[in-house]
Amino acid sequence: MDPCILVIFGGTGDLTRRKLYPALCNLYREGLLPEGFAVVSVGRRDLSSEQVRETVMDSINEFSRQPCSCNLEELEQSFLNRFHYYKLDFADSTGYGHLKDFLEELDQEYNTAGNRVFFLAVAPEYFSEISNDLHNHNMVINNGSWQRVVIEKPFGQDLDSALVLNAELRKTFGEQNIYRIDHYLGKEMAQSIMVMRFANAFFEPIWNNKYIDHVQISICETDGIGTRGGYYEQSGALRDMVQNHMMQLLTLVAMEPPVDLSTEAIRDEKVKVLRSLSVKREDVVRGQYGEGIVDGQRLKAYRDEDKVAPDSNMETFAALKVFIENFRWAQVPFYLRTGKRLPHKYAEILIKFKKIPGVLYFKDSSLNPNILTIRVQPDEGIFLKFNTKNPGPGQTIIPVSMDFYQHEIDGFNSPEAYERLLHDVMRGDSTLFTRWDEVEYSWRFVDQIERWWHTSNEPIPIYASGTWGPKEADLLMKNDGREWFGPTKS
Amino acid sequence: MDPCILVIFGGTGDLTRRKLYPALCNLYREGLLPEGFAVVSVGRRDLSSEQVRETVMDSINEFSRQPCSCNLEELEQSFLNRFHYYKLDFADSTGYGHLKDFLEELDQEYNTAGNRVFFLAVAPEYFSEISNDLHNHNMVINNGSWQRVVIEKPFGQDLDSALVLNAELRKTFGEQNIYRIDHYLGKEMAQSIMVMRFANAFFEPIWNNKYIDHVQISICETDGIGTRGGYYEQSGALRDMVQNHMMQLLTLVAMEPPVDLSTEAIRDEKVKVLRSLSVKREDVVRGQYGEGIVDGQRLKAYRDEDKVAPDSNMETFAALKVFIENFRWAQVPFYLRTGKRLPHKYAEILIKFKKIPGVLYFKDSSLNPNILTIRVQPDEGIFLKFNTKNPGPGQTIIPVSMDFYQHEIDGFNSPEAYERLLHDVMRGDSTLFTRWDEVEYSWRFVDQIERWWHTSNEPIPIYASGTWGPKEADLLMKNDGREWFGPTKS
Repeated sequence: MDPCILVIFGGTGDLTRRKLYPALCNLYREGLLPEGFAVVSVGRRDLSSEQVRETVMDSINEFSRQPCSCNLEELEQSFLNRFHYYKLDFADSTGYGHLKDFLEELDQEYNTAGNRVFFLAVAPEYFSEISNDLHNHNMVINNGSWQRVVIEKPFGQDLDSALVLNAELRKTFGEQNIYRIDHYLGKEMAQSIMVMRFANAFFEPIWNNKYIDHVQISICETDGIGTRGGYYEQSGALRDMVQNHMMQLLTLVAMEPPVDLSTEAIRDEKVKVLRSLSVKREDVVRGQYGEGIVDGQRLKAYRDEDKVAPDSNMETFAALKVFIENFRWAQVPFYLRTGKRLPHKYAEILIKFKKIPGVLYFKDSSLNPNILTIRVQPDEGIFLKFNTKNPGPGQTIIPVSMDFYQHEIDGFNSPEAYERLLHDVMRGDSTLFTRWDEVEYSWRFVDQIERWWHTSNEPIPIYASGTWGPKEADLLMKNDGREWFGPTKS
Repeated sequence: MDPCILVIFGGTGDLTRRKLYPALCNLYREGLLPEGFAVVSVGRRDLSSEQVRETVMDSINEFSRQPCSCNLEELEQSFLNRFHYYKLDFADSTGYGHLKDFLEELDQEYNTAGNRVFFLAVAPEYFSEISNDLHNHNMVINNGSWQRVVIEKPFGQDLDSALVLNAELRKTFGEQNIYRIDHYLGKEMAQSIMVMRFANAFFEPIWNNKYIDHVQISICETDGIGTRGGYYEQSGALRDMVQNHMMQLLTLVAMEPPVDLSTEAIRDEKVKVLRSLSVKREDVVRGQYGEGIVDGQRLKAYRDEDKVAPDSNMETFAALKVFIENFRWAQVPFYLRTGKRLPHKYAEILIKFKKIPGVLYFKDSSLNPNILTIRVQPDEGIFLKFNTKNPGPGQTIIPVSMDFYQHEIDGFNSPEAYERLLHDVMRGDSTLFTRWDEVEYSWRFVDQIERWWHTSNEPIPIYASGTWGPKEADLLMKNDGREWFGPTKS
């Protein structure tokens, strides 16, 4: 792997502390960092590199998936010593020149050869500014050395703002050097979907409208918006979850087999799914959580949360039925559902297979359908529900299930999404990042729905905290003779 | 259910004691015996009904799958008191008249209305004789009452003798009243195969030569022939296992979906498989066990066993490659293997799916194929082996498996095959018994192989006890670029 310096803008922020530092430590332990490597945390606060190293240690102890079993002295020598702090006000462009000098000094010390990963763990309003300043100070050359930029979500607020942001970034970085993060793509099961579909002979033949009745994708949360009212009032469930994470899961499940396993071939197929998406106005449901009592505790309504307008119409829940208009999926509805303050926290893709009415055992209309579930979180697994004969003298048929959990693999401790993603940026593999046209088409899709909602005078349906969203979401299913499934139990 | 008397010829024999008595007790416990019910054990020895009842209790305690938790007094009243002994020399036809009178007396006592199940748990040479004597004494009327006969295997020694036996039986019993037992059909998983295939939407689409590479059916035993040398010298592995059990498993796996779930519709499809079977002389392997050391113990060669000719050429192992010449299975080999003194005792059907060479992940030729295993014994289960991404930053693919065991169903204690089979005879359901034409076509198939072997001067290959049979069996696979799988581990 090429050597490089990882420059984290927003180095004192939450994401850095909770996700990036522990991820780096795990990569280090597994020998997945390049030999020439350093980290520069860039922030506005007055800190020393020593203090940053303490924060790194603290964050590892607090957030890492594995306890710190390293020899501390050795860790200090070869890992912690590579962390540095650099104080910079992102809005003050004069500081960038000094940062440039500082990084070039580190190049000497760590043999990092001018390669940079600029990780923008900052509020979206700084994305363009930082990018422009890097450009203006000749910090992005991509000639002999490489410079990549990592952008956290959200990538724009709608298609127009995303177009502007992208144009700004493209002044400085080529598309191949822009890594748009969707941390759902870093999750093990999301990555496994392609392997499951295309490294096995028996899923692909039935992966189409001849055998599949419908697909459900649920990303459900139990938490409310917490302290993120300011952000959420500008965003809502549709922009916060559907435009990115849900669209990514949807494309992985629905895409055609790519020509090969290269990044661009896979992205080409994902974009084709997004371009084939269709949704009707009556098939979109929104909701906002009201008060509720969960585990004996009274929970606030969304409108009573901090930094939320008391008459806010922002959705904390969205459910929609979409179709993918191609030969494989014609007439197979994909039901998507996401929300806050729901009864369970989980993310799952559920595939319900058709029954064959009137044929042999299927004559019994109470026969259960086959169901394949791909659990993305909190645990990662595959569940297959099928019918078998109830043992004994009768001929009753009962549903049973087989399951496979990722953690059943020996010695497996699910790597955090950010480990995978950071490693891929350093290797220059952008398969698990979002290409511009994926962003573009998913905004096109989401904008259409936003327009419907914003031109509507209907009040937003309120659901009690701790319930499965507004009744309209159930009707969406019920009107089709279907129902939402809760989290799969094995 | 109709009332009836179960008349067991061979009532003092091993099968009765080990299988029939415990099966009756379990049926009783589960409320599956008719209210009007009695058992008459017929044997040549001098026994009292009291002694038979003691044997019933002993056999339940020794062989039943569930310990006797019944109230003993109650058991005595309503179950044990229904057992009677009747002394009869099967060869002495004068005794049958008295037996008839005795049964008619019991009809009065138990309200059994003249219905009879005649269970012939005797050596095959008595089948015709007993049947004829029942006929001559007007004990089979089938007018207002019904009389059924249950025949244990073997049904003949070859097609000719089976034809003769069948003609004899048909003088007395109609085909619909002849219940030819193949106890493999009573096993839970054998019964589940049809449900698995036809009550699920996702197996049938891939159940054909487009997706399946080959099928392996193994019935392996660790024991030698024990004290059964006399029988075995007349039989051998081909007649003892292939003609019946293996053909039954093969037909269940390979048959087309029947028109409906009626007995005759299912049997029609099974016969079609047998009629489509083809085998080549070079695709048949036999073997005989020699000496061997297993677990530190020296085991006798077959030729040194009791009642075995010292130059016997009888096979204790058979392996064959067969094809089913129809649209579904053209070019899919079915490999069958059975033998004694092999390393493991188990029965399994293994379905290996095709790889898709050159396509995406399949470009890596080391990628494992998908495998579906149906375990018939000792435990009963379904295993699905598929490929998934090895968790972590790499893109390696590893095989994992999902499993479903019958015993995972709550409160399930696998019923013995004979429970199911006795219950079905009393109900008059012959689905799990062998129809005459099934017997006929499987003998036709087996006779052909017997002829090849009997016209051959080649010595029979000897394999060491405790090994997987002669090397010729491995070559049968190796020449096709395949290999036998051992028992599936979950």
